[in-house]
Amino acid sequence: MNAVGSPYLPDPEKFHGYLNRIYETGRLSNNGPLVRELEERLQDFLGIRNLLLVANGTLALQVALKALNVRHEAVTTPFTFIATSAALCNEGVTPRFADIDPESLNLSPERIRGHAGPGTSALVPVHVYGNPCDVEEIERIAANRDLAVIYDAAHAFGIDYDGNSILRWGDASVLSFHATKLFHTGEGGGIVFWDDQALERARSLINFGLDPGNGEIKEIGLNAKMSELHAAMGLAVLEDLPDILAARKEVLETYERELQGWVEFQEWGPKASKNGAYAPILLSDVSERKRVEKYLSGNGIACRPYFSPALHETSPLRTGTDLPNATAQAGRALCLPISPGLSRTRVKSICDRIKTVLSNE
Amino acid sequence: MNAVGSPYLPDPEKFHGYLNRIYETGRLSNNGPLVRELEERLQDFLGIRNLLLVANGTLALQVALKALNVRHEAVTTPFTFIATSAALCNEGVTPRFADIDPESLNLSPERIRGHAGPGTSALVPVHVYGNPCDVEEIERIAANRDLAVIYDAAHAFGIDYDGNSILRWGDASVLSFHATKLFHTGEGGGIVFWDDQALERARSLINFGLDPGNGEIKEIGLNAKMSELHAAMGLAVLEDLPDILAARKEVLETYERELQGWVEFQEWGPKASKNGAYAPILLSDVSERKRVEKYLSGNGIACRPYFSPALHETSPLRTGTDLPNATAQAGRALCLPISPGLSRTRVKSICDRIKTVLSNE
Repeated sequence: MNAVGSPYLPDPEKFHGYLNRIYETGRLSNNGPLVRELEERLQDFLGIRNLLLVANGTLALQVALKALNVRHEAVTTPFTFIATSAALCNEGVTPRFADIDPESLNLSPERIRGHAGPGTSALVPVHVYGNPCDVEEIERIAANRDLAVIYDAAHAFGIDYDGNSILRWGDASVLSFHATKLFHTGEGGGIVFWDDQALERARSLINFGLDPGNGEIKEIGLNAKMSELHAAMGLAVLEDLPDILAARKEVLETYERELQGWVEFQEWGPKASKNGAYAPILLSDVSERKRVEKYLSGNGIACRPYFSPALHETSPLRTGTDLPNATAQAGRALCLPISPGLSRTRVKSICDRIKTVLSNE
Repeated sequence: MNAVGSPYLPDPEKFHGYLNRIYETGRLSNNGPLVRELEERLQDFLGIRNLLLVANGTLALQVALKALNVRHEAVTTPFTFIATSAALCNEGVTPRFADIDPESLNLSPERIRGHAGPGTSALVPVHVYGNPCDVEEIERIAANRDLAVIYDAAHAFGIDYDGNSILRWGDASVLSFHATKLFHTGEGGGIVFWDDQALERARSLINFGLDPGNGEIKEIGLNAKMSELHAAMGLAVLEDLPDILAARKEVLETYERELQGWVEFQEWGPKASKNGAYAPILLSDVSERKRVEKYLSGNGIACRPYFSPALHETSPLRTGTDLPNATAQAGRALCLPISPGLSRTRVKSICDRIKTVLSNE
């Protein structure tokens, strides 16, 4: 069965080349040379600065929250993977869910305004499936109310907004480099800080709060260090990234062309590039989505109702608040298989099967 | 300069053999086959059950605290690495420091009794340098007051107590598999649970609280998963472990023999085996320790005042409580280089230098 996002494995020789450097340096963790090289190369590739590599995307958000002193409550989206809210809860910050825009599938700035209260210290929007949030409006709201903005950019690797990396927006953006992501390190994550001092603080926070200079305990931190093994994987994957991105975009375009008029698609921001991280479609309602999902799965095609249910409807996070757009779109969305190795023929055959289900209604 | 504990690197061919299996399975994380194999092999090697592998030792303690519902306060030792207390703080549990026994360097059961109050829900003792705590007395205290016991066994890999693994004691024991540990996975950790249900809960908690069966969100968890890359390193290191342990013990015995009468040593539990994880010596006072440290470092011999200062004397954890044994021993302790590759000649030459300093007082 094709997984929704099979891990991309770089040429083993290339990977072993980086691993050999671990044998030369004798370093396996604690801000080793491969981690530093990957940080620099990713900064160049993405056109950003102040990137800190960490153990995974969830810890990336936790560290960003600590580094930016986020407390009490943060306004966030219920239409995302559990990691976004879990990171908040793990830092003692209560997620306050606002509804999404039904077209972009991102947090609606208007709804953010309605949910930011006196206890709110941050906004934590998600660039859902890589589609940039309304960053300009969100920054205005944050500036007016003196709130930190941390974007969950787990899906937004390589996305440009208005000609520059989307990661330049907000006080911080967090990335996931989990195995299934378009760029990955096996397990891993990153934080892009706007402010140099927040970066320096985070550099200490990922290593127990120790001062990187003299080793003194400055404050209480986490162990969120990325290892050299994961950095080696990242360096090998990074070499192939132009090809990976091109292949994924072609898969996505084939889906969009083939399914045009049959299903709906997320409305993509006009100033934004695409990265082919996900291939979500919106069926007409939850029962149609379930029919398509069942038929595809029955025919060996992995697909995933990602993200369903919306977080405000899960038992640990249920609030009783009515967020109709999130509920409806969580029911309708289905992520189709996408990976650089997926052939055009295979994509067309998946689309044909979807059309078969939709024709038989 | 010899590091205090240089990472052990297994034969690259052996390591690549395990990495090749990642290419066969296409799995990089999420309880993959290498993680499961390492769990089983470690259980066999250590003579334990209910081992869960995780991303690092700090997260191991955090997950154990969540799985065992530890809240409010825990009595713990100030004579340890910051990770023990950091894990508590990250889970919203206040460390309540009790003093150590000056001979064993472990938490004194008598002092635990004096510090466990109405808000205490757990005891978190550390087997310092691998030396087992007074587990029988600690279990009695815990049983009387209905407290959970989680041992920080980061140093205690392979230690037997009364003929069985020390990891069988307590509700849970947590291990660190950081690069510098005698058994390591690069970065990594493990939790050994007494109770099967706590293990199953933790298995979900390390993967965001998702139900391993149906993927539903059961509760709020962390991302504390061990990757296949780290498991591959662990499997390769494990093959060499009998030799590693033998070599380390020989280094330790040489130090003890050569320095007998010149310095003091930690009083090791009579029922306990040794693992050569660390080679700590106790100088007569803090100024002598500093002199020895300075002389060794100046001669290219890495040594470490591990752990200094005691945690109750660091700015984020200062309580004003007087814990004289911890303060004194933190000033006197110095960890000497120990690794499987350290020759007897080198160890003797380090000892000679120490004697030179001590003779010139």
